[in-house]
Amino acid sequence: MLVIELRRHSQLSLARQLYQILRDQMTAGQLPPGELLPSTRELARQLEVSRNTTYEAYEMLSAEGYIVSRPGSQTRVADGLCLEKPVSAPQSLPQKTESQLNYLADFRTGRPDLRRFPQHLWLQLLRKTSETLSPAHWGYSGPEGLPALREEIAAWLLRSRGLAVDPECIFITAGATQALYLLAGLLAGKNREIIVEDPCHIGMLRVLQSKGFQIRPVPVDQQGMQTAYLQNKGACAVYVTPSHQFPLGGILPASRRAELIRFARDNDLYIIEDDYDSEFRYSGTPVAPLCSMDNERVIYVGTFSKILFPALRVGYVVLPPQLHKPWRHLRTHTDVQNPPFEQAALAEYLRTRKLDKHIQQMRRLYGQRRQTFLQLAEEIFGNIWIPWGDAAGLHLVLEFPGRHFDRDFAKNCRQQGIYVTPVEYHSICKGSHLDKLALGYGHLDSEELRQGLLLLKKPIDNSKLC
Amino acid sequence: MLVIELRRHSQLSLARQLYQILRDQMTAGQLPPGELLPSTRELARQLEVSRNTTYEAYEMLSAEGYIVSRPGSQTRVADGLCLEKPVSAPQSLPQKTESQLNYLADFRTGRPDLRRFPQHLWLQLLRKTSETLSPAHWGYSGPEGLPALREEIAAWLLRSRGLAVDPECIFITAGATQALYLLAGLLAGKNREIIVEDPCHIGMLRVLQSKGFQIRPVPVDQQGMQTAYLQNKGACAVYVTPSHQFPLGGILPASRRAELIRFARDNDLYIIEDDYDSEFRYSGTPVAPLCSMDNERVIYVGTFSKILFPALRVGYVVLPPQLHKPWRHLRTHTDVQNPPFEQAALAEYLRTRKLDKHIQQMRRLYGQRRQTFLQLAEEIFGNIWIPWGDAAGLHLVLEFPGRHFDRDFAKNCRQQGIYVTPVEYHSICKGSHLDKLALGYGHLDSEELRQGLLLLKKPIDNSKLC
Repeated sequence: MLVIELRRHSQLSLARQLYQILRDQMTAGQLPPGELLPSTRELARQLEVSRNTTYEAYEMLSAEGYIVSRPGSQTRVADGLCLEKPVSAPQSLPQKTESQLNYLADFRTGRPDLRRFPQHLWLQLLRKTSETLSPAHWGYSGPEGLPALREEIAAWLLRSRGLAVDPECIFITAGATQALYLLAGLLAGKNREIIVEDPCHIGMLRVLQSKGFQIRPVPVDQQGMQTAYLQNKGACAVYVTPSHQFPLGGILPASRRAELIRFARDNDLYIIEDDYDSEFRYSGTPVAPLCSMDNERVIYVGTFSKILFPALRVGYVVLPPQLHKPWRHLRTHTDVQNPPFEQAALAEYLRTRKLDKHIQQMRRLYGQRRQTFLQLAEEIFGNIWIPWGDAAGLHLVLEFPGRHFDRDFAKNCRQQGIYVTPVEYHSICKGSHLDKLALGYGHLDSEELRQGLLLLKKPIDNSKLC
Repeated sequence: MLVIELRRHSQLSLARQLYQILRDQMTAGQLPPGELLPSTRELARQLEVSRNTTYEAYEMLSAEGYIVSRPGSQTRVADGLCLEKPVSAPQSLPQKTESQLNYLADFRTGRPDLRRFPQHLWLQLLRKTSETLSPAHWGYSGPEGLPALREEIAAWLLRSRGLAVDPECIFITAGATQALYLLAGLLAGKNREIIVEDPCHIGMLRVLQSKGFQIRPVPVDQQGMQTAYLQNKGACAVYVTPSHQFPLGGILPASRRAELIRFARDNDLYIIEDDYDSEFRYSGTPVAPLCSMDNERVIYVGTFSKILFPALRVGYVVLPPQLHKPWRHLRTHTDVQNPPFEQAALAEYLRTRKLDKHIQQMRRLYGQRRQTFLQLAEEIFGNIWIPWGDAAGLHLVLEFPGRHFDRDFAKNCRQQGIYVTPVEYHSICKGSHLDKLALGYGHLDSEELRQGLLLLKKPIDNSKLC
């Protein structure tokens, strides 16, 4: 007789439970191949369930080949089902991710102030535009992105940066990280080698490394990449942040831009221009993209994560025509396309110039916060620091000459509830920027800035001296 | 005197135009290094624009290092700006993508009927749930996906398939293609070799090939992968569709499932189980996933593209604990995460059992269409064909013994407005399935089916004979 225990109040139907118990007994060898099974009527009586239940369970077992029944003979267990028990792997406890933690002083970089984003307006737009999408847009609509969005981005690049781009050259991505990830795949020829700024955003560096790239660092100073150090030993591309070097904050001057482009032409390389936050420049107009100097060789990467909100997951690349076809192929076999809803809403947000207005407001706000940050830093730390970079972006780098900020410093801070990033963390050749901290301020109001900097004073005072 | 022509009615401000013209003249060498520039006042007079305009243009040029001015001396063109003209690459015309074409008879596979999706209800849910998302969700919320969605998927896997899964093991992806793409990256050890069914979805095959995998095909019959042919020469994984083999439609019987799992255990391989449409099974309940037999070794991949709509871009993987950490790292450096809005709406759709109801309705509809399709095929083609596979899914494979369907056949059909896929297209070892066609019917109503099959009759009658 079969030993079967059914739970009457389970989410699982009785038939499903019965099926699973029998199946497990078969694969465990308790019900060996060829073993006779009771009829559905007999089993139903035995278990005090309806005949439908046993019938349904046998149906499933039969359909999947666990049991066999031939006309005129009883049902038997099929052959070849037995599995030994798997060896259990050690269970790792789920880790709390970075984003789930709360800090007393949160100086993470690259965070816009989400409390100031007009969420309600956005959701209204999202609904309105989603309703107008044709049924075809609920299916596969192509790896390029929504035509309306590509056109609006082209118009916006022209009015905000003077960059004239054919909408057909704009390809929507799921953010800038994906853009770089796909570009790395696209450009990787025989030589998986890429020239990058040092320091460089560690996340982006890891993207390149994950694609098997050798990294060739070029040092950075107050003005960005030191192009005089450019040397080619077989790289396929240069990755740069000329509008606002991450993390040091410099704007690449024209002569270095020209040198960089000459270098790329002489060595037949592409330049990947990551323009992650040039909208937020607090004096003068946004810097003209490198791309405007040579759109055959410079691939421009833009994102709406900083301008709007990171969860939007919409970025784009501007590609020269010879890369369009391979890009379509690559995106199709990576994750096919972006969802259309956010794209449609964003197109409308651009078309109605709500984006321009939002940027204007946020630029004013972030500019004020930068001022506040600098004043508070002077008030709290005194004159022991020097600011780096141009008046732009959502973060600042402060140099504290003679101090030493390493991994232990950051760890110690985090234990005290302070999130702060030593520039060393983003350095490739370690040791050149030990005296600098990258501090995000865009998402913090003046009270949060004050509290945060007050908390940070003690760890800085206690930091190692070189 | 400078030769400058400004357009008064351009979208571009006069200052921006002036800046661009001067910059272009400098990089083209027309304004050589060291050249003296007129004062802003002088230039304003010359061009008949306001002094603000010339001032702003000079400000931009100066900020970006195109011009230099020292106290007490005039403004000059900076050094090192000159670029030769780039060589233009040939411009390729934009191609029409597959999704933009319309067919008279559209038998594409894997297409749900989007006209039957309750779009209005979905958009209401999208708005409602988006409004309840906390500001933190507009930022980065982690590569795992929304906790609420992971829990609802776990509950749904239990009630629909009897699959008990810890929500912590479920990781949301941007569809099944991305899931496979990331898994390929995760599992690629020293040996980039993977065992797959032959025939196998060509898109998925290309994903694996794009990650540099060697493909080891195993032949498929009416019941799915012929596990007796399994042989290991250093593969790291097996990719299978046991619930409904794509494209041939077999359900892998229990003994083969057990053999596959024993093989994976003996050779220390992972199994990637792609369950792309098992919801739509028209007799009996959905097949139990292979994953339920060994959740340490089988990685389950699910998608909502077929159940709901492709543009949703939400799928998931069920991962054993030892893969959680590397997965998080990989996703973070690929495209970070999915947008939260669709995830929140989907969680609610699952929680309120609207998904269950939708599947039930669509299963009935697709089941009827399958019947209609088979009846019409008999009526129109006579008895010259044999159906393959189980009563499931959104497509059918028909074998026409003695016929020969190759690339030319498909191309010829497309020229006549008929989209049809020879199974040969999905074959790895070419030539074994030349007499079979894969025909999607899920998205076609009975009139469309009739029209489509009538159109298809002529090309089939005229097809080559072996």
